[in-house]
Amino acid sequence: MTTAQLIEQIYIKKSFLCIGLDVDLNKIPKHLLQTEDPIFEFNKSIIDATHDLCISYKPNTAFYEAYGLKGWQSLQKTIDYINTNYPEIFTIADAKRGDIGNTSSMYAKAFLEDLNFDSVTVAPYMGKDSVEPFLAFENKHTILLALTSNEGAFDFQTKLSGETEIYKHVLETSKTWKNSQNLMYVVGATKAEYFTEIRKIVPDSFLLVPGVGAQGGSLQEVCKYGLNANVGLLINSSRGIIYASNESDFAAKAREEALKLQKEMEEILKTK
Amino acid sequence: MTTAQLIEQIYIKKSFLCIGLDVDLNKIPKHLLQTEDPIFEFNKSIIDATHDLCISYKPNTAFYEAYGLKGWQSLQKTIDYINTNYPEIFTIADAKRGDIGNTSSMYAKAFLEDLNFDSVTVAPYMGKDSVEPFLAFENKHTILLALTSNEGAFDFQTKLSGETEIYKHVLETSKTWKNSQNLMYVVGATKAEYFTEIRKIVPDSFLLVPGVGAQGGSLQEVCKYGLNANVGLLINSSRGIIYASNESDFAAKAREEALKLQKEMEEILKTK
Repeated sequence: MTTAQLIEQIYIKKSFLCIGLDVDLNKIPKHLLQTEDPIFEFNKSIIDATHDLCISYKPNTAFYEAYGLKGWQSLQKTIDYINTNYPEIFTIADAKRGDIGNTSSMYAKAFLEDLNFDSVTVAPYMGKDSVEPFLAFENKHTILLALTSNEGAFDFQTKLSGETEIYKHVLETSKTWKNSQNLMYVVGATKAEYFTEIRKIVPDSFLLVPGVGAQGGSLQEVCKYGLNANVGLLINSSRGIIYASNESDFAAKAREEALKLQKEMEEILKTK
Repeated sequence: MTTAQLIEQIYIKKSFLCIGLDVDLNKIPKHLLQTEDPIFEFNKSIIDATHDLCISYKPNTAFYEAYGLKGWQSLQKTIDYINTNYPEIFTIADAKRGDIGNTSSMYAKAFLEDLNFDSVTVAPYMGKDSVEPFLAFENKHTILLALTSNEGAFDFQTKLSGETEIYKHVLETSKTWKNSQNLMYVVGATKAEYFTEIRKIVPDSFLLVPGVGAQGGSLQEVCKYGLNANVGLLINSSRGIIYASNESDFAAKAREEALKLQKEMEEILKTK
């Protein structure tokens, strides 16, 4: 999917919501555990109930790998289901990969080609040659960790190097990499005041923003400082939507929660 | 496996060699492609031919994920084969994972519990709460990226913060984390002169050293600066050993290459 197509979808759906498909078998409705593939059945129901309210789904690979072969199969069925039934959806493999060049190429192939995700999250610690193999795929996107939403973000990301924090060096440096037009960035919602600074460095880039909801971030605050002319934000919510209920009404309740966020986003887009 | 058991194995085998099982179907002998599971057949032959010369095997997960479900199955069969037949081997899942706390827990469970690796490599960018879930497993080890062997290492890892490089902050800070006795570190061999500095910060820790061989690092140089009282080094070689030949003699040739390194290590241990 091109960035232009993503922006078009945002205006069609009046939403820049991304739903995180982080499926934990301990948290899904009990009746699904009797099915052959509970993870996929859960995802399918959530997707069917919310696809018109969001522009993106983001399965975090950890939740699939934790169930071994069966989990990997559920991930494959989930991405195939989205690509077949809702090709207008922007898909994100939240994998946070990164390795030396020839190895990163293998990860890139796995997520962007074989599984056919539109994008994949990547960790920056190993630098340029660990990220560029992901950037080489046309009309695919690499979402680089910049400032994450967890406490540990303050261990290294916000450390000053010269007069500039490391996460800003990541933003600055990444702009010089080959095919950097395919970059987006992860920026946690729990630190809305940082968005002003970040927008000075990457005014035009899309930012994937986790941390709204369960992790305590505010949608209004993030939009106040983070929106750009093309919206430029993908706001993720996972637990707040997919675990709104663990009874048989889980899909309907997930829709209700997604609808609240979509309505809030529609208002924000109107006043923009 | 405990650290004491690992050290014991090093002295029994007179080796601190780790063999990287980075299997690329384009590089293995053609006759294996006719078998049902070429990746596993290749690994099995390499392992049977070299297990007495090395103390560790390190599959890089990228090479398995690149083949989807079948690849994941090959990884599972490989680790099961090692654990069943050669339980004295220290196994490393070279996965370079790291995410927010509850998500890192899922990765830790996948690699250290379900697949039952002795250790897993982890990226430090997201800080303390992204690494501690891995450290919580008893007699398991978390191998944190400190200074990697690629060009991109100079993008952020060697940036100065105050008077200290970021990778040294990673080493220093990680020592304060809960269960830090379960930490080891990745330090690339292509920068032997850095080992003196690193040993000042982590004198007792094991260092996993990639970059000897194909990437140009020198075993002698690394040992000169990196060895400690308990050896404290796991030297990895991947391509130089496993792709020594792509004919039917590949396992015998891999043994020859592994033997060269083991003999060199035996000499180093003698003069230590």
